[in-house]
Amino acid sequence: MIESLVYDGTGVESVEDLAAARTADGTTWVHVEDASDAEIDAVADAFDLHALAIEDVRNNVRAKSEEFSAYTFALVKTARLTRGETTFEEEIDDEPVGLFIGDDWLVTVATGSADPVARVQESVRRGDERLLERGPDFTAYRLLDVLVDSYFEVLEHLEGQIEAIEDEVVESPDADLLSDINSVRRELLSFRKVVWPVRETLAVLARGDVRATRADTQKYYRDVYDHLVQLVDLLETYRDLVVGTRDIYLNALSQSTNEVMKVLTVVATIFIPLTFVAGVYGMNFADSAYNMPELTWEFGYPAVMLGMAGVAALMVFYFRRQSYL
Amino acid sequence: MIESLVYDGTGVESVEDLAAARTADGTTWVHVEDASDAEIDAVADAFDLHALAIEDVRNNVRAKSEEFSAYTFALVKTARLTRGETTFEEEIDDEPVGLFIGDDWLVTVATGSADPVARVQESVRRGDERLLERGPDFTAYRLLDVLVDSYFEVLEHLEGQIEAIEDEVVESPDADLLSDINSVRRELLSFRKVVWPVRETLAVLARGDVRATRADTQKYYRDVYDHLVQLVDLLETYRDLVVGTRDIYLNALSQSTNEVMKVLTVVATIFIPLTFVAGVYGMNFADSAYNMPELTWEFGYPAVMLGMAGVAALMVFYFRRQSYL
Amino acid sequence: MIESLVYDGTGVESVEDLAAARTADGTTWVHVEDASDAEIDAVADAFDLHALAIEDVRNNVRAKSEEFSAYTFALVKTARLTRGETTFEEEIDDEPVGLFIGDDWLVTVATGSADPVARVQESVRRGDERLLERGPDFTAYRLLDVLVDSYFEVLEHLEGQIEAIEDEVVESPDADLLSDINSVRRELLSFRKVVWPVRETLAVLARGDVRATRADTQKYYRDVYDHLVQLVDLLETYRDLVVGTRDIYLNALSQSTNEVMKVLTVVATIFIPLTFVAGVYGMNFADSAYNMPELTWEFGYPAVMLGMAGVAALMVFYFRRQSYL
Amino acid sequence: MIESLVYDGTGVESVEDLAAARTADGTTWVHVEDASDAEIDAVADAFDLHALAIEDVRNNVRAKSEEFSAYTFALVKTARLTRGETTFEEEIDDEPVGLFIGDDWLVTVATGSADPVARVQESVRRGDERLLERGPDFTAYRLLDVLVDSYFEVLEHLEGQIEAIEDEVVESPDADLLSDINSVRRELLSFRKVVWPVRETLAVLARGDVRATRADTQKYYRDVYDHLVQLVDLLETYRDLVVGTRDIYLNALSQSTNEVMKVLTVVATIFIPLTFVAGVYGMNFADSAYNMPELTWEFGYPAVMLGMAGVAALMVFYFRRQSYL
Amino acid sequence: MIESLVYDGTGVESVEDLAAARTADGTTWVHVEDASDAEIDAVADAFDLHALAIEDVRNNVRAKSEEFSAYTFALVKTARLTRGETTFEEEIDDEPVGLFIGDDWLVTVATGSADPVARVQESVRRGDERLLERGPDFTAYRLLDVLVDSYFEVLEHLEGQIEAIEDEVVESPDADLLSDINSVRRELLSFRKVVWPVRETLAVLARGDVRATRADTQKYYRDVYDHLVQLVDLLETYRDLVVGTRDIYLNALSQSTNEVMKVLTVVATIFIPLTFVAGVYGMNFADSAYNMPELTWEFGYPAVMLGMAGVAALMVFYFRRQSYL
Ligand SMILES: [Mg+2]
Ligand SMILES: [Mg+2]
Ligand SMILES: [Mg+2]
Ligand SMILES: [Mg+2]
Ligand SMILES: [Mg+2]
Ligand SMILES: [Mg+2]
Ligand SMILES: [Mg+2]
Ligand SMILES: [Mg+2]
Ligand SMILES: [Mg+2]
Ligand SMILES: [Mg+2]
Ligand SMILES: [Mg+2]
Ligand SMILES: [Mg+2]
Ligand SMILES: [Mg+2]
Ligand SMILES: [Mg+2]
Ligand SMILES: [Mg+2]
Ligand SMILES: [Mg+2]
Ligand SMILES: [Mg+2]
Ligand SMILES: [Mg+2]
Ligand SMILES: [Mg+2]
Ligand SMILES: [Mg+2]
Ligand SMILES: [Mg+2]
Ligand SMILES: [Mg+2]
Ligand SMILES: [Mg+2]
Ligand SMILES: [Mg+2]
Ligand SMILES: [Mg+2]
Ligand SMILES: [Mg+2]
Ligand SMILES: [Mg+2]
Ligand SMILES: [Mg+2]
Ligand SMILES: [Mg+2]
Ligand SMILES: [Mg+2]
Ligand SMILES: [Mg+2]
Repeated sequence: MIESLVYDGTGVESVEDLAAARTADGTTWVHVEDASDAEIDAVADAFDLHALAIEDVRNNVRAKSEEFSAYTFALVKTARLTRGETTFEEEIDDEPVGLFIGDDWLVTVATGSADPVARVQESVRRGDERLLERGPDFTAYRLLDVLVDSYFEVLEHLEGQIEAIEDEVVESPDADLLSDINSVRRELLSFRKVVWPVRETLAVLARGDVRATRADTQKYYRDVYDHLVQLVDLLETYRDLVVGTRDIYLNALSQSTNEVMKVLTVVATIFIPLTFVAGVYGMNFADSAYNMPELTWEFGYPAVMLGMAGVAALMVFYFRRQSYL
Repeated sequence: MIESLVYDGTGVESVEDLAAARTADGTTWVHVEDASDAEIDAVADAFDLHALAIEDVRNNVRAKSEEFSAYTFALVKTARLTRGETTFEEEIDDEPVGLFIGDDWLVTVATGSADPVARVQESVRRGDERLLERGPDFTAYRLLDVLVDSYFEVLEHLEGQIEAIEDEVVESPDADLLSDINSVRRELLSFRKVVWPVRETLAVLARGDVRATRADTQKYYRDVYDHLVQLVDLLETYRDLVVGTRDIYLNALSQSTNEVMKVLTVVATIFIPLTFVAGVYGMNFADSAYNMPELTWEFGYPAVMLGMAGVAALMVFYFRRQSYL
Repeated sequence: MIESLVYDGTGVESVEDLAAARTADGTTWVHVEDASDAEIDAVADAFDLHALAIEDVRNNVRAKSEEFSAYTFALVKTARLTRGETTFEEEIDDEPVGLFIGDDWLVTVATGSADPVARVQESVRRGDERLLERGPDFTAYRLLDVLVDSYFEVLEHLEGQIEAIEDEVVESPDADLLSDINSVRRELLSFRKVVWPVRETLAVLARGDVRATRADTQKYYRDVYDHLVQLVDLLETYRDLVVGTRDIYLNALSQSTNEVMKVLTVVATIFIPLTFVAGVYGMNFADSAYNMPELTWEFGYPAVMLGMAGVAALMVFYFRRQSYL
Repeated sequence: MIESLVYDGTGVESVEDLAAARTADGTTWVHVEDASDAEIDAVADAFDLHALAIEDVRNNVRAKSEEFSAYTFALVKTARLTRGETTFEEEIDDEPVGLFIGDDWLVTVATGSADPVARVQESVRRGDERLLERGPDFTAYRLLDVLVDSYFEVLEHLEGQIEAIEDEVVESPDADLLSDINSVRRELLSFRKVVWPVRETLAVLARGDVRATRADTQKYYRDVYDHLVQLVDLLETYRDLVVGTRDIYLNALSQSTNEVMKVLTVVATIFIPLTFVAGVYGMNFADSAYNMPELTWEFGYPAVMLGMAGVAALMVFYFRRQSYL
Repeated sequence: MIESLVYDGTGVESVEDLAAARTADGTTWVHVEDASDAEIDAVADAFDLHALAIEDVRNNVRAKSEEFSAYTFALVKTARLTRGETTFEEEIDDEPVGLFIGDDWLVTVATGSADPVARVQESVRRGDERLLERGPDFTAYRLLDVLVDSYFEVLEHLEGQIEAIEDEVVESPDADLLSDINSVRRELLSFRKVVWPVRETLAVLARGDVRATRADTQKYYRDVYDHLVQLVDLLETYRDLVVGTRDIYLNALSQSTNEVMKVLTVVATIFIPLTFVAGVYGMNFADSAYNMPELTWEFGYPAVMLGMAGVAALMVFYFRRQSYL
């Protein structure tokens, strides 16, 4: 679906014919949403867009920017969290948005839907003054600004997941927690993979040595770039938090094994020797002066029981001192 | 709350009207504390401050500096340790302080309270000669210097925590120590996240290619920068110390499991065979020349007991040699 | 086997004689496949190729590019997955392809077979317009483009292996899984070792300060370079995924040991004390008022059994609370 | 204590008056040892040393160099190994030495004692020709050279500690070894923290774009710098060795737990079934054709014993094959 | 031992007198092997070699290059594998070779023996044309080329060790394998420490901004540099392989402990309850209707045995399902 707007300080109008739109006075913004091949070809034709750039948008390659003689090309990505079955159905779903920023025109191409674009179109139609007056590079800036804001929404979702994991690791660290931890690590990694090249792309635009950025717009690109730097910073921090959580979990497991071993050791080492003693007095030796005379003593049994209790008490005392109990 | 001071070598005075303050002879310093939107707008209006810079202060974005035509903008952070409930209520609380350094004026904007600013204001009022004479960039330097000193106070607190952990890991390594260790690691990480961009910001100011730093002030900015480099160095070192502590703790746990296993093994392997022997002599085989004649020997019982003692002695000897005992 | 083509906008022809081919009008492309020493010498002689460059192709050294006075030399690699017996029969099999890009000629030398070359030769023969018209550097670009596409085929195979491992680690984590994991890690590492220098080589070509890249071809080299950057990005991500899988596997093992210990501990700590009690009542003390009067009570046996059941119940309750059961 | 020397090719003399010393013909070297505040102020006054540089020496900040209009300032550190009680009484004790290198004078300030300085003073007094003739920057070089040699003495001590640990990990890996390992890691880290900034400082001096280094002295600074690079290289290597030692130690612990478990398992699994059998034949079932007729067989007992021996032999065989024995 | 050769396109001759050799027509190459102090002094004197460079060779410092007014100095290392007793008798034995490359002379100084030098001398004597004609920098290149080839021989030896470890970890992972693994890691590290600075040194020579490299020789230095880059790449890869081997070994140990625990758990949990039952029927309760009437039943014994078999069968079934068996 192609939508083309022409606007300047005096107002906004829709111009169907692409050739007319391109040469119209004021800023021309042509946006192609859910772009079909025919639509892309039509726009590329009308604005002389380079085949390589068009292909990059179609193939959704890594975000990038490239300077052409009549325009600056920037490829950025929208990001949305969609949990899939396996790893390679990417948990972070990214869609390409290609920006072609000319002298007095802007072409944007999205092969899917691109919510941030819709929001900026809305602002133009509502007659946002700065958008109308400041030319195509300022419109591009607004698009990028809204896009980066949408990244922060993804980030907030990831924050929620990390908090949930941090709560769970304290309250009930069970067997599948590590797999959850790994899943978040993967999402952070996957998100970083989307954001990092966009950051590089904006660094180029913010440096101001491309046609797209006039002196007074450069500060705005720089501002978006700063937000992206902050985002990447936070991603790094979150990754560290997640690794810390994993350490706590693995430790809880070791601690549990240690506790289990202590219980077994205490019970077994107390009762095994006592059982041996009981076994001894259960032996069937024939009567003889040397064969267990205790068996015939009047207080033989209580004496043995007392002895056993003494041994058990000593062991409990020992285990207390070792803090096994 | 807006407070505006005008000063030069001859003295200090308060000037209420912002327009008058800006054009007054000498250095003008306007500070906005706990800044309300209206106050920020008033100051931005009086000194022509750029909307993007104002927004950066309001949104407390990452520390940064930016050159504008009439002034240099630098955004820095105060840092305070406040332990929260969950991770995302940042343990290191940072508040933005925006500095706008003009030719003969300085505007500082803090959306919260900023203790370091108060201290420098106090020095100005007390008539510190160098502050009065050296212009707005020197006043800005003093502010940054006091700010970085306050970072070192936070660092000292973290040092205390690390020492406490190091003591505990030696004396009583219990189950929640790892969580304490992780908490300090997080604070170090969080502090680094605040300090690192401030360091970058000061690197720019110290390089001297911005309007804010005159030749004779540059060395001062460089000095503050050096302190920040030292701070970051220490943070790295502390992080290494904390990781080392974690290793010692985890090892103590493994060592404990190993000890527990040895106790169990020694006791069980000594008494289980003996209990078997006792069990054998407790069997109820009918009398026959081949069925346990020992039972009827005169010294049968002492012989068996001696045999058992011999087996036990051999095992103790073996465990000694294996250093299980 | 030497194959030499001469072509321009009007058509393609085969020219046997190398000297004639070099000076013919249009673009000359000489390709040596499964190159014998004699063939290489013949081509090197006809096109004055430097001995060092020829040696680099023969020895299959690291991918590289070098500028010579009459041509640009670039050494790249084909990559194919062939699993060998031991580590040093490289799992990723790479073969050298040397490109010598002159003003109106291109020489390519492969000591093995190079499928990507065959595909581009086919395109030339079929009369691909852009190939015929745009000169030797564009032909070289197409070769590199097809080559990098073949890298992505290898990558897809590795993706399949990682998915298989991720499935297995969840369903049946057995003893040799770690060795599979390590094997994939090694392949990723080995592939990265091939791709990384090719990436560097293309970075040089894309920068456009070598003879090989005319202004209008440079964007094409840049495009191939971007694909390689994406490939390396994916390799990094996959390596992270594999490490994550390893963590899950090792944890499953610890978890299993923990479970096994719990089973042993529960059974042993319940029955060992009970066995002790049974042993006590099996002792052969002579009748006396103090020697186990319980043995003669009418309800002695049921009482003891009840007592044992009580102890067992208490222990089960305790283990439930500890969640050992 | 202030000591001031004036020297050139013809000889050395002591000049008490600082002002006279500064303007005297030849090279002036003023050294302040165990510098008191008054002494530092006197020297700073006589040679117009900048307050910031003086403060850096007093506060013992990170090593650094700074260019002033009349001299080059370099702050370096002496290093000595002193083991303290807790972490923050640094195990590597470093003291600041400030160098101010003017056109024909050198001022050195040490707030503690600085042995390397004394050694160079001695050389000057003994009339070392090159020192007398080559000016203040050569004297500064000699000071730095002796200083770096003293670093290598510290390094040799650390080598000794690492060798001791490597011996101990093989011969008697006990519980506190990890704490020793960690302690050495900390010393290496702490030493690196001292040396690294000194390395940076010398890199600046060796680059030769500061006043301090004349063309013919530059090579000498470069030489000291090279030694520091080698030192840092060795520190990295030692750190790797220490980490390797830790791995061996942790493995020895796991191995020991594994061995202990095998002993327990072998003894318990052999005797527990046998004890069960003995227990069975100890049961008190009344005579009946179906109740343990074995008990009345003539060869019942030997048959049972043989059976038990057979079971034990089978188990030993099994454990042999599993290499538990 | 000093050996001096003078050569050009017309032939080679030995010239004893160093001064005469220096000024002779053609290229002069003076090599000092197993250099004594007197020999080094003689050569340094004849060719005006700087004292600092001479000292660097004597002290075998890190590989480096330095530009002097009349020559380029490069210090490189031969490498040989010699396994010592302890860590600090370096397993990789490196000897210094100093190269001083003048306009028409080359001086090489080795404090030990340097096999690569001998091989190049041999080529000169045999009249290798390119060596005779291309001047001292080409001779130096050949030396470096042969030297780097000898590094690859060391690398092949290390490959053999890694393969041996990889075989052993699969076939018989025993206690000292980790120490072997660590030993190879140390050798790789130690080798890297030798090679890395040589790589840096060759990077400088290959950049061509030193006197030593004429335009036509530069490509040759670049070629040697490329080989070193490949070598370092392989070292990194091998280090990764070794770390992977360590992981497999440590996992084998954990797996073994897990297996041992399973055996113990299965045997103990089957027989401990059965032994308890046998113990119960061995108790000596007096006859009474409530005291173990089973003992007097005709089928009491077979019933109990069946019951026990049933319990054992259930447990085996349970352990099968848990895959302990
Ligand atoms: Mg970052
Ligand atoms: Mg950061
Ligand atoms: Mg970080
Ligand atoms: Mg961290
Ligand atoms: Mg960690
Ligand atoms: Mg970091
Ligand atoms: Mg640092
Ligand atoms: Mg550092
Ligand atoms: Mg560090
Ligand atoms: Mg460390
Ligand atoms: Mg560590
Ligand atoms: Mg990457
Ligand atoms: Mg990346
Ligand atoms: Mg890597
Ligand atoms: Mg990363
Ligand atoms: Mg990554
Ligand atoms: Mg990761
Ligand atoms: Mg990990
Ligand atoms: Mg470090
Ligand atoms: Mg190094
Ligand atoms: Mg290093
Ligand atoms: Mg290293
Ligand atoms: Mg290493
Ligand atoms: Mg490790
Ligand atoms: Mg390294
Ligand atoms: Mg490498
Ligand atoms: Mg590499
Ligand atoms: Mg690598
Ligand atoms: Mg790896
Ligand atoms: Mg390691
Ligand atoms: Mg690994």
